[in-house]
Amino acid sequence: MAVLEFQLERTDKDSKARTGTITTDHGEIQTPIFMPVGTVGSVKAVSQQQLVSDVKAQIILGNTYHLYLRPGLEALEKAGGLHRFNGWQKPILTDSGGYQVFSLAGTRKIKEEGVTFQSHIDGSRHLFTPEYVMDIQRIIGGDIIMAFDECPPGGSDYTYVKTSMELTHRWLDRCWDRFNSTEDKYGYTQNLFPIVQGGTFKDLRKASCEYVSSKNAAGNAIGGLSVGEPEPVMYEICDWCCDHLPKDKPRYLMGVGTPWNILECISMGVDMFDCVMPTRNGRNAMLFTTKGVINIDNKKWEFDFSPIDEGMGNGFSSFYSKAYLRHLLKSKELLGLTIASIHNLAFYLWLVGEARRHIEQGDFVSWKNEMVEVLKTKL
Amino acid sequence: MAVLEFQLERTDKDSKARTGTITTDHGEIQTPIFMPVGTVGSVKAVSQQQLVSDVKAQIILGNTYHLYLRPGLEALEKAGGLHRFNGWQKPILTDSGGYQVFSLAGTRKIKEEGVTFQSHIDGSRHLFTPEYVMDIQRIIGGDIIMAFDECPPGGSDYTYVKTSMELTHRWLDRCWDRFNSTEDKYGYTQNLFPIVQGGTFKDLRKASCEYVSSKNAAGNAIGGLSVGEPEPVMYEICDWCCDHLPKDKPRYLMGVGTPWNILECISMGVDMFDCVMPTRNGRNAMLFTTKGVINIDNKKWEFDFSPIDEGMGNGFSSFYSKAYLRHLLKSKELLGLTIASIHNLAFYLWLVGEARRHIEQGDFVSWKNEMVEVLKTKL
Repeated sequence: MAVLEFQLERTDKDSKARTGTITTDHGEIQTPIFMPVGTVGSVKAVSQQQLVSDVKAQIILGNTYHLYLRPGLEALEKAGGLHRFNGWQKPILTDSGGYQVFSLAGTRKIKEEGVTFQSHIDGSRHLFTPEYVMDIQRIIGGDIIMAFDECPPGGSDYTYVKTSMELTHRWLDRCWDRFNSTEDKYGYTQNLFPIVQGGTFKDLRKASCEYVSSKNAAGNAIGGLSVGEPEPVMYEICDWCCDHLPKDKPRYLMGVGTPWNILECISMGVDMFDCVMPTRNGRNAMLFTTKGVINIDNKKWEFDFSPIDEGMGNGFSSFYSKAYLRHLLKSKELLGLTIASIHNLAFYLWLVGEARRHIEQGDFVSWKNEMVEVLKTKL
Repeated sequence: MAVLEFQLERTDKDSKARTGTITTDHGEIQTPIFMPVGTVGSVKAVSQQQLVSDVKAQIILGNTYHLYLRPGLEALEKAGGLHRFNGWQKPILTDSGGYQVFSLAGTRKIKEEGVTFQSHIDGSRHLFTPEYVMDIQRIIGGDIIMAFDECPPGGSDYTYVKTSMELTHRWLDRCWDRFNSTEDKYGYTQNLFPIVQGGTFKDLRKASCEYVSSKNAAGNAIGGLSVGEPEPVMYEICDWCCDHLPKDKPRYLMGVGTPWNILECISMGVDMFDCVMPTRNGRNAMLFTTKGVINIDNKKWEFDFSPIDEGMGNGFSSFYSKAYLRHLLKSKELLGLTIASIHNLAFYLWLVGEARRHIEQGDFVSWKNEMVEVLKTKL
């Protein structure tokens, strides 16, 4: 039972991409890594067995806001934490609930103390403080837990973002204190990652990176990106943040993004990613493949009996055909949602695995530049 | 490539229950057997891999009416039949579409020639004749295909049922002729099963059994039961039909039923069953278990972290807890529908497997009588 360790393995000679291994009490994670999002303790439409055998996930996310509302803390605590509740044996990361409170919940009010909000399920009122969010994440029992932050809306002006960032920093101090004065509940070590904010303003981002780095946490996250800013701006800020965060700790870019976003950000030195895109877009008939993007709803796939994607070896995505998946989604069959979700997730995991392999063999940048073009192709 | 064979293995000394092996070109089926219903080429919410590894299905059903409308004959024929289309390698049985035409479709009209009906999807008009239904099932490519019959509504009077049965017999002749004058399309043998009708009238059922038996088909089906008649009547008619159908051919009771229905009908000599109950009721939070029936929606399971069912060995149903499944269904998570469906189907397959084992070891009736009471228990 030990604090999370990050072993940096290989750094690319032509970029800032790197490989590493994160060790937690629930096992190892090979970086760069993509983490499927398991909102309420389930990656939508995918079973825990399929996550292991077909997706080959090494770590999944849980959303604190959702889990707090359902099944609730009593069930999670009585179960002995989320791993025992849902049967997932590998590492889990929980977010802080901040993002959902701001984007999903009803009328919310931000004060120094914390945020009051209304449940999107029954309209009930709740208060999240930095301290309480630490207590909640202690009960959920993620291996990695996140500091409570405010994620300002995309396009916010300098004054708003600066004020918000300073609040996030004061909340970080309170998270840090609470985390360090409370204990792991279930016999394995939890690790708190702070989150960099600062919008699209480089001086604020630099200040936030420095503040966050001063905590010497086991890992650091970049929040507040992919919230509506243009792609080049997202890349510029991500790159800038990577340059101002410790090299010897894992860097986690929150909520990003498309397959090409992930490759570009790996080249800047990001190690961990999560995003609902593979599952959400999959359920809406959009498939990411080794040859490009497929809208499987399109009539052109009606009689295409070739596998969904043959480019990832002899796994799940070479079993079902495009025509069959299209038929299932057209017929609103639940299996269609499952197949599309598993394929997209397996593809994301394949992609970060390939990135790792190319960093190791020293041709990452040329491979990445080629792949980015291929992946964006509309098939 | 050979016609379906049925090897009768063991007949119970205290009842008419028996074990056997059906051999098709897609493999063997150990009887008594339950066949999961794969409506439009997918058992709802369950993948083909899960059907093999978790449910342990040996044969699945496809619905001719649904497959004819979606994906349609062109796709199925171009794919090379349903096995190739959906990736299911074991035997498939297709129904004749009759039942769905009468229960699902819009305005329909029964004539000597066949039935005109409207698609429940787009209202388009179609005509199913006995000959066309043979052609359709040739294209779908089931290992076992069913004769086109009229299934009279529960409670129909003697005159209606007699007229309807006579029509079904004339249609059977036309099915038989068309089937025998057409060829297997995909290199394996298809087998036509006729269907006994006659409602709840013993003289009609006897006449229908005799007519059906005269075809000397590879197997025979009992239709028109579990359509609203009281359970004792269903048992009486099923028993009566079994007595008037050949012993050396598999007997298939269509669309029945609860776990206790299945055990009782096995004791009368039924070999094959299908029903949407395990999947449909599962999606509505009703679980069949080795200890009785569970309404998993019930608050009493909120903190029950014991496995869904430990009585079936160390398989799928011992992995997820009752509390977790309840949480998923409450939260309308797709995985909840999948887990409930897989569990119920695995339970049905476990149940017919246990029946087989007890017939072999000679204590079927005492085991059956005990189990029927246990299975009905509301937990």
